[in-house]
Amino acid sequence: MKTRELGIGLLGFGTVGAGVVEGLQRNGALMAERLGVKLVLHKIADLDLDRDRGVPVERALLTRDAEAVVRDPSVDVIVELIGGCGIAKKLMLQALALGKPVVTANKALLAEHGAEIFQAAATKNTSLHFEASVGGGIPIIKALREGLVANNIRSMYGILNGTCNYILTRMEQEKLAFDVVLKAAQAAGYAEAEPSLDIDGHDTAHKAIILASLAYGFPVPQNAAYVEGIRGLAMDDIANALAMGYRIKLLGIVKHSTEGISVRVQPTLVPLAHMLASVSGVFNAIQVDGDIVGQTLYYGRGAGRAATASAVLGDLADVARDVAAGVRPKPAIQADTAQSTRLRPIGEITTRCYLRLALLDKPGMLARIAQVLGDHGISIASVMQKESSAGKHVPVIIVTHQAPEQQFQHALKLIDQLDFVGAPTVRLRIEDFE
Amino acid sequence: MKTRELGIGLLGFGTVGAGVVEGLQRNGALMAERLGVKLVLHKIADLDLDRDRGVPVERALLTRDAEAVVRDPSVDVIVELIGGCGIAKKLMLQALALGKPVVTANKALLAEHGAEIFQAAATKNTSLHFEASVGGGIPIIKALREGLVANNIRSMYGILNGTCNYILTRMEQEKLAFDVVLKAAQAAGYAEAEPSLDIDGHDTAHKAIILASLAYGFPVPQNAAYVEGIRGLAMDDIANALAMGYRIKLLGIVKHSTEGISVRVQPTLVPLAHMLASVSGVFNAIQVDGDIVGQTLYYGRGAGRAATASAVLGDLADVARDVAAGVRPKPAIQADTAQSTRLRPIGEITTRCYLRLALLDKPGMLARIAQVLGDHGISIASVMQKESSAGKHVPVIIVTHQAPEQQFQHALKLIDQLDFVGAPTVRLRIEDFE
Repeated sequence: MKTRELGIGLLGFGTVGAGVVEGLQRNGALMAERLGVKLVLHKIADLDLDRDRGVPVERALLTRDAEAVVRDPSVDVIVELIGGCGIAKKLMLQALALGKPVVTANKALLAEHGAEIFQAAATKNTSLHFEASVGGGIPIIKALREGLVANNIRSMYGILNGTCNYILTRMEQEKLAFDVVLKAAQAAGYAEAEPSLDIDGHDTAHKAIILASLAYGFPVPQNAAYVEGIRGLAMDDIANALAMGYRIKLLGIVKHSTEGISVRVQPTLVPLAHMLASVSGVFNAIQVDGDIVGQTLYYGRGAGRAATASAVLGDLADVARDVAAGVRPKPAIQADTAQSTRLRPIGEITTRCYLRLALLDKPGMLARIAQVLGDHGISIASVMQKESSAGKHVPVIIVTHQAPEQQFQHALKLIDQLDFVGAPTVRLRIEDFE
Repeated sequence: MKTRELGIGLLGFGTVGAGVVEGLQRNGALMAERLGVKLVLHKIADLDLDRDRGVPVERALLTRDAEAVVRDPSVDVIVELIGGCGIAKKLMLQALALGKPVVTANKALLAEHGAEIFQAAATKNTSLHFEASVGGGIPIIKALREGLVANNIRSMYGILNGTCNYILTRMEQEKLAFDVVLKAAQAAGYAEAEPSLDIDGHDTAHKAIILASLAYGFPVPQNAAYVEGIRGLAMDDIANALAMGYRIKLLGIVKHSTEGISVRVQPTLVPLAHMLASVSGVFNAIQVDGDIVGQTLYYGRGAGRAATASAVLGDLADVARDVAAGVRPKPAIQADTAQSTRLRPIGEITTRCYLRLALLDKPGMLARIAQVLGDHGISIASVMQKESSAGKHVPVIIVTHQAPEQQFQHALKLIDQLDFVGAPTVRLRIEDFE
């Protein structure tokens, strides 16, 4: 059998783009044997043609004209690694309009303009592949879309941002403050100079939105997600959580119930015995609960040149199989009208909480706090009052039973106005993974 | 678009077979929406037509004549859930000879007769799907064959047998002896009355063989695997390992190096901080290291009616996509001639070891032990001598540096003949996952 070829046009020759080129050079022959299709890089578009990416490429492959790459008839598939929602979106829509499959790692674009892009792919009956957009090298999209296709997805819990997990791991292990670790992470290249996308939870939200859209078969709008990040998280809370048997992780949480679907991003107390508590440093992991398979979990490097390239190359292999077989590609999102499509507002969501209050050390105060909580239907599971130190205020840790978010918000508003409360109460959610 | 149908013939209506029927009844409509193909159960063959499986089926679907099900022209795909290497093999070969795709959970058959069966599928250009044969509901076969297709697989470490992991977890958590937990597991239905397949490591070996065959593209013969189980593992060793920061797990280990491929099954000391150490009870997990993606890990229920059914249904979905598209199915095993195909004998394999010796409490003995080890190129990393108790012999724990298996075997043969050694030395391998 003559080996067929798949012509690749690469848009964006940055970190991941260079990783894809390197991966093809390293294992392209192996992939051709496994697939019966040879992946051939025809063109690379980038504005910077001169920078050394640490991988040798023929000068003739490089161009500044990305649109010409999209149109090039020798290019069968477009790999979009430019990122962002500007030119990347325009080029992606052009490729899809030409019926060319697109492979992308662009989570922001999919989360913010997914509906439009998936529609463009469907209109031209072509395919959109985005394994690299969530969880780096972890084949989570494939697991969800194919391996677990027989399942209603009940919930997903993901450590989806390597920068945040790296910061949380170092804060705990080295007992360093948030700002100190963030600066170190920026110096080491693990965090951006403008870190908000990561540490304020937006990147995690993009990924949770993509997972939810995939699991429930419709484009979940970005504003359906409630988002909190880890900015300014206190070392005290990490230590208190640990003393109680929990580790704080930034989780993207997607849940499906008869009342609808919820998507949220929150720093969360995870029981130490849970697998997600063992995920440290820049690694990612996603727990997926299916109604037939039960609990499953997927773990690996959530970012980085090589790991993300592995996911892009896996997507290219899927395109190669489809093209070789002359098949209509798989739909970008699973049709799934059987699912409830109601998106639940955060106020409805019920969790247990960890509260750290700063109280004046006088009798009767805890009773008044308990009263306010009780008035809002929030009952207390445990209280830990620390020894009074030099300061005026004593930290009191309260762990609650389940109550709706709304009730917590109302109760804490009242509590923080009490005259013996010395600072805004810190509140973190606890997940028991029931 | 008219929804197409895929006619299913189910061979074997036992635990997993009933789970597949139940899964189709529960989520068949959802799967049809997702796939554009309706999965229709046409026939179920079993010798016992009367037993209640806890799932309603039309009597007309049931038959004792499995061969007729294979031949039935309305049956597009055969699901083989009989198990074993007898009638199951015959029926599978008949189905493949008719060009019908086969979905199976039969790890023993694939491990022992894989070459013949994969050849039969290749001859008729049809496909063999076996996600359910390894790791229950975990989509590890798909991850390996598709998601990580761009990678040379450097190593795989799997907790692949739920029964063994359940026994090890209970022994540690409840400080119970092996025999006690085995009996409890048998009473609870977690272990077979004849437990050898599980506890002596053969089931784990079957699965490791399948993973190795898949990763390296040729049928690895079963006798290439070195197999030790957990039978008679002592509580003392579990406790000693824990005190040193390790948890004992039965691992299937596949490694690839320039010297070849090794496959072995051994109770192994796993560092507590490693994800595999957190896998408890009947759960399975497989760590896969790829040369591009780095370390990844997959976790879930390794057995049971529903979880295994999820994997079978995932395979049926793949068949449905292929059939709907009219495509030649994916090859059963990846061609992969680029890999070294030398199988390394166990003697070559280098590990660190945990040794528990029973020594008479007299001066100079440890020096003599160290001398024998040193003569065989085995150097000592640490020694822990326990307080002498009532008995004549003192347990001495030695942790070694890396040395070849062969050297350990020779050294221990000599050591166990020394007059001050009171019992055969216990040896367990340590994995550092470097």
